[in-house]
Amino acid sequence: MRIALDAMGGDFAPQNLVEGAVLALREYDALTKLFLVGDQPRIEAELKRLAFSDPRIELVHASQVVDMTDGAAESVRKKRDSSISRAVELVKSGQAQALVSAGHTGAAVATCHIKLRTLPEIERPAIGAVIPTETNYFVIIDAGANISPTPEQLVQSAIMGAAYSKHILGYQNPSIGLMSIGTEDVKGNDFTKKAFELLKNSGLNFRGNVEGHDMFDNPVEVVVCDGFVGNIVLKSIEATATAVLHWLKSELLRSPVRMAGAWLARGAFRTIKKKASPDEYGGMPLLGVDGICIIAHGGSSPTAVKNAIRQGAESIRNQVNPHIIEEVRRYNAQRPSPTASLTQHAP
Amino acid sequence: MRIALDAMGGDFAPQNLVEGAVLALREYDALTKLFLVGDQPRIEAELKRLAFSDPRIELVHASQVVDMTDGAAESVRKKRDSSISRAVELVKSGQAQALVSAGHTGAAVATCHIKLRTLPEIERPAIGAVIPTETNYFVIIDAGANISPTPEQLVQSAIMGAAYSKHILGYQNPSIGLMSIGTEDVKGNDFTKKAFELLKNSGLNFRGNVEGHDMFDNPVEVVVCDGFVGNIVLKSIEATATAVLHWLKSELLRSPVRMAGAWLARGAFRTIKKKASPDEYGGMPLLGVDGICIIAHGGSSPTAVKNAIRQGAESIRNQVNPHIIEEVRRYNAQRPSPTASLTQHAP
Repeated sequence: MRIALDAMGGDFAPQNLVEGAVLALREYDALTKLFLVGDQPRIEAELKRLAFSDPRIELVHASQVVDMTDGAAESVRKKRDSSISRAVELVKSGQAQALVSAGHTGAAVATCHIKLRTLPEIERPAIGAVIPTETNYFVIIDAGANISPTPEQLVQSAIMGAAYSKHILGYQNPSIGLMSIGTEDVKGNDFTKKAFELLKNSGLNFRGNVEGHDMFDNPVEVVVCDGFVGNIVLKSIEATATAVLHWLKSELLRSPVRMAGAWLARGAFRTIKKKASPDEYGGMPLLGVDGICIIAHGGSSPTAVKNAIRQGAESIRNQVNPHIIEEVRRYNAQRPSPTASLTQHAP
Repeated sequence: MRIALDAMGGDFAPQNLVEGAVLALREYDALTKLFLVGDQPRIEAELKRLAFSDPRIELVHASQVVDMTDGAAESVRKKRDSSISRAVELVKSGQAQALVSAGHTGAAVATCHIKLRTLPEIERPAIGAVIPTETNYFVIIDAGANISPTPEQLVQSAIMGAAYSKHILGYQNPSIGLMSIGTEDVKGNDFTKKAFELLKNSGLNFRGNVEGHDMFDNPVEVVVCDGFVGNIVLKSIEATATAVLHWLKSELLRSPVRMAGAWLARGAFRTIKKKASPDEYGGMPLLGVDGICIIAHGGSSPTAVKNAIRQGAESIRNQVNPHIIEEVRRYNAQRPSPTASLTQHAP
């Protein structure tokens, strides 16, 4: 498998990216080629520091880096030689089968959208974030690609999330909830009320509005919302889980007896840390573009980068895009009026 | 102190409400009068079941209950004899100094807004939710009153949240963060970008955009957002904290050794449960109306109801409204153009 890594994207670039690449190359034999895209001298210096060389590495120079203060669309136009831009081009040309970026999310989304284009009958890409719970995994879609979607685009996101849940996570008939403020049908804002009506008549396994507790307690498999809300929810969940475990750690360190107790119970903490850590999951698929793009956290550790690369490899193996195309076609075909396809309806 | 309790509002009404009232009357001598508002025979039956009587209780009959499927504004017009409506009227007339409701939040907000009116120069009320962390308390405002505010109304919410943080929670110069998707100034949707500009020039201690981790890690004291996002964030935080602790409990029960460890460390779990439980906090103040209203969770336990009543009593003692009036006046007075006051600007 051939993967392109945006080696300059992320809060700790290129260090953590190159270290993550090294971990991935050591661990995954299925990787036949890893493009490290970015400032060549700096990437070479990192590899030298790590005393690592591997014939599967190919350096691809890019003279620019998208800055976190750059506008997303603007970055595509103005920084044509950015690392993210070059990485996407490697996918476009077929040299790489997937790309991984921990850089500016908006820039990665815009670059993929413009250069790779969207899948047939999908208007806008959406990010699917997979969240582990005690009993299952659920997908939040959109976790930050399209911050002001139309209700029709939200339905497309729901279809993509369901396809991901079914074909990648293995849920037979994933249930879908619309993130809102109250589970009753009448609750929500103008946007969610319109989306509710479309979802209700979509033929999807729509369970109605969901709230926080519906994510963990009798959960749905797909939580659909706009990218603004989804990004905030995702980060709130991560921050809260981290904060609770950190708080607990502080309390456990307050006395020798508690510390002894924590030592005896250490397996429980390890299990949760292992399953719930964003590091372990690594990255989020950008769904709806004609190619495979994994979006990793800006603050990704080397382990998180390694796991994002692993996820890129899994996505190449699992190929969710043909399923998305099929599901959207089926949805559009079964709609009451053949002229009312989603793409034709969009403003 | 004289408090009105909407005894019919909430998922477990009137049982949990009446039980909570009994707990509050047993515990708080400062309560001189507690109005139990709602279906008199049912409330009497609950009191009889609990074998409780107290001369401080006054039953106020209301023949209707706002249902969770009722529209908020519609409920005020169509259910004039609802328990929430009667409870608000007791505050309006001065018979009660505060009211507590665990019922339909939208209906409580709309009823207070219409019957009590807003404070001078405040256009719309906002709910302030106080969240405990390891090191401090922060306020999310708005947690669900005004789901589509104007940017100007968001600034008013920020001012109210800051006044609450300063005068009730005791933070001298509370810092304010705008909930968004990325901490850079350019990040956000159209609404947050406009609000950002207003907040930057507001004279408030504005720290810019914040994300999930900024709530717990070097946190601001006030997180401001619209009521749709705030409600979702609040519920996501609560659900995640509950889910993590529940998950941990399951893991701790998997072996006798882990259970022994958990027993030794039980003080740590108790401290967190005590400080972080929504039950302990009890309710959220509805800020910006000319009166005191505490909004409790729909699923409030008797303990949560008791604590919401306690919070009503504390709000009567602390009187945040004069401070809100003063802070909004100061803000409007210092704005560049005297014609540009918030209320005049609103659409």
